Amino acid sequence: MTSFLTVKTTEDVLRMVESFEPLDSERVDLYSAPGRVLADAITAPESVPHFNRALMDGFAVRARDTFGASESQPGLLQFGGEVRMGEDSRLELASGSGIAIPTGGMLPAGADAVIMIEHTSRLDGETIEIMKPVAPGENVLMAGEDIPCGQAVFSAGKLLRPQDIGALAALGIDSVPVYRRPRVAILSTGDEIVPVPTMPLPPGRIRDINSFTLAAQIMEVGAVTGTVERVGDDLDSLVRACRQALEEHDVLLLSGGSSVGVRDLTVSILDFLPGAELLVHGVAVRPGKPTILARVGAKLLWGLPGHPISAMTICRTLVLPFLSALQGLREKPVWKGLEAEQAVLTRRVPSVHGRTDYVPVVLSKEGEGLAATPVFGKSAMISALTKSDGYIIIPTHVEGLDAGSAVKVHLFHSNFLR
Amino acid sequence: MTSFLTVKTTEDVLRMVESFEPLDSERVDLYSAPGRVLADAITAPESVPHFNRALMDGFAVRARDTFGASESQPGLLQFGGEVRMGEDSRLELASGSGIAIPTGGMLPAGADAVIMIEHTSRLDGETIEIMKPVAPGENVLMAGEDIPCGQAVFSAGKLLRPQDIGALAALGIDSVPVYRRPRVAILSTGDEIVPVPTMPLPPGRIRDINSFTLAAQIMEVGAVTGTVERVGDDLDSLVRACRQALEEHDVLLLSGGSSVGVRDLTVSILDFLPGAELLVHGVAVRPGKPTILARVGAKLLWGLPGHPISAMTICRTLVLPFLSALQGLREKPVWKGLEAEQAVLTRRVPSVHGRTDYVPVVLSKEGEGLAATPVFGKSAMISALTKSDGYIIIPTHVEGLDAGSAVKVHLFHSNFLR
Repeated sequence: MTSFLTVKTTEDVLRMVESFEPLDSERVDLYSAPGRVLADAITAPESVPHFNRALMDGFAVRARDTFGASESQPGLLQFGGEVRMGEDSRLELASGSGIAIPTGGMLPAGADAVIMIEHTSRLDGETIEIMKPVAPGENVLMAGEDIPCGQAVFSAGKLLRPQDIGALAALGIDSVPVYRRPRVAILSTGDEIVPVPTMPLPPGRIRDINSFTLAAQIMEVGAVTGTVERVGDDLDSLVRACRQALEEHDVLLLSGGSSVGVRDLTVSILDFLPGAELLVHGVAVRPGKPTILARVGAKLLWGLPGHPISAMTICRTLVLPFLSALQGLREKPVWKGLEAEQAVLTRRVPSVHGRTDYVPVVLSKEGEGLAATPVFGKSAMISALTKSDGYIIIPTHVEGLDAGSAVKVHLFHSNFLR
Repeated sequence: MTSFLTVKTTEDVLRMVESFEPLDSERVDLYSAPGRVLADAITAPESVPHFNRALMDGFAVRARDTFGASESQPGLLQFGGEVRMGEDSRLELASGSGIAIPTGGMLPAGADAVIMIEHTSRLDGETIEIMKPVAPGENVLMAGEDIPCGQAVFSAGKLLRPQDIGALAALGIDSVPVYRRPRVAILSTGDEIVPVPTMPLPPGRIRDINSFTLAAQIMEVGAVTGTVERVGDDLDSLVRACRQALEEHDVLLLSGGSSVGVRDLTVSILDFLPGAELLVHGVAVRPGKPTILARVGAKLLWGLPGHPISAMTICRTLVLPFLSALQGLREKPVWKGLEAEQAVLTRRVPSVHGRTDYVPVVLSKEGEGLAATPVFGKSAMISALTKSDGYIIIPTHVEGLDAGSAVKVHLFHSNFLR
């Protein structure tokens, strides 16, 4: 175990994400694929569309046969039959004729455009009058015009959104290789912690809040909660529980009691876990300073502060990015980091150089925009978080923000399914 | 059936959300509650914290005994014993004394503040030197200071986020009443539609993309996909399939073939569904004009365009808000509608007065901000959506936007679990 103790900045910690490989991959059917991350690149096995398709109801034509037609001087085409929806059109378009076709119908050979039904009129069984010219390719989608066969469609590391699932379905791909979701164990320790349903709550004890909040948070990035357990805060019990949890999970979140003793215990555990390497022992952040991150083989052990607000803050800002990385998410969209609400700070928020502060805020309307007010109350109050819409970040090298500053508010809702 | 046909604006359609009641409620345990919507108000059954808690390691004191203490003129207190973590402190603090206490420990009777250990030194077994005064309430959280017993904590209609789950856990509430998630049936019709795994794809046929994209989209707001089925596009089969789907689900998404015939069929079905009321027959929108919404008793039948891009656009912009409303979501956060990326449009986008346009865009960096470029290609191309980061809305009463306009981009990612 590397045991020299260094307090890291949040930026240091987030850079460590790069040093963890994605988990192994598994094949899932397309219905289960939304929100998952592709583990292999996808190449188009066929063309989309598969055939030249009409995009409008009308007549399939050769565009050049329509040139010059107008309301005042309609062109005339010979009626050449009808293509039915879903049918393999064996008709061939003769020069100077038009074949009736529905939206989505297969263009007959020889046709290169569709003239909309609104711009035509049937004079008799034999003749179609056309009031407008069409250009080649107009109102049709040619075979492979959307996705040509053999094209590189998606890279590994791509998050699959509904439209991406749609493209895969269009290509006839009904299962895809995706990275496995991380399995996460949540252990709570601290002699003062009792199960939530304990009634009445004995004086001096508090309920096990972290098990619920951490499970809810990791769900937001698609990780899977495995074992959730309270463990006594003696070294033996902790070592035994951590060993087993690390055998069965990819990530262990150990939320310690708030006292110094239990924090030290978390570091001591590492001596008993073969191959454990202490990466972070304390983060220059408020709240959440007593955070620990260790690597145990390919697995991660986080020692989180026992305090629910601190644990939740560290989980959202530091743990979740690692859980996304384990799922192989390699996309770096240009808007990343910009997707926060612009607001004006209503009062001064002090901070300290060298420390990142996460400050919960309430949003209100301010003219056309939004105002952000830091939530009052002691940092230990969970009601400070339930009342807030999001949080602002005061970066490491900024010593507080003045009232009137433009800030970016990271919405608590934004990770949610709405 | 009300059969007069009126094309509605998107605003008209979205206003109809109000006329649907939330589904019935069910009780779920707290682990299953994140992302669900409360069906009843919650009142605090006890106080949080339950007892006066120390927020720092140090000594529990009477604040007034510390007044005047400083580095140069330390105050002296008598050592009055120690409170252990998680224990019901039966100690009583005598005037002029201090009791050692860990963070999270229960304050002894008579104490109203904690002086941090860093600002004290133990002179001997009997005496503590203090270098700083503390104010009453400093470094302690008094019983009920976070959430007082009897307080109205959450209203019905609230979306439960991780911190809200935390507050419920803190209150000893381990199950909550939430609105039921809507069950949604997805039927595809159109003779040209074949199942996705069909190999090789016969000429003239296309794969059933909508079943996959619609299922992926409704998942984003927590709705549950039930029956997914292809149905022949004759009236008999459709009526039979729709009846059964409406019996077993709250919402039916019927994605029709793209041709006019199948669209008319969807309206005809309503004549055979007792109590059906046509609410929307066509929306002034692009893409997605041939959209139908009917009410069948308390249930909803959507007739969606067969075209995957149109169906996806209507699902995201019109169907999903109804699915959220059925889950009882009544929160209207001030930032609602503002949570979109600011960007500058790189080229002119034409539209028509009286119609809402949804235009997919790609984002790129532009100085400190973002530029939004409309995605090229025919609207029928699914690759236009897979390439885009989000979409812009050209509202009903705007006739297009000029290059250089400031636009709000609704990110496709924002509904996702990242």
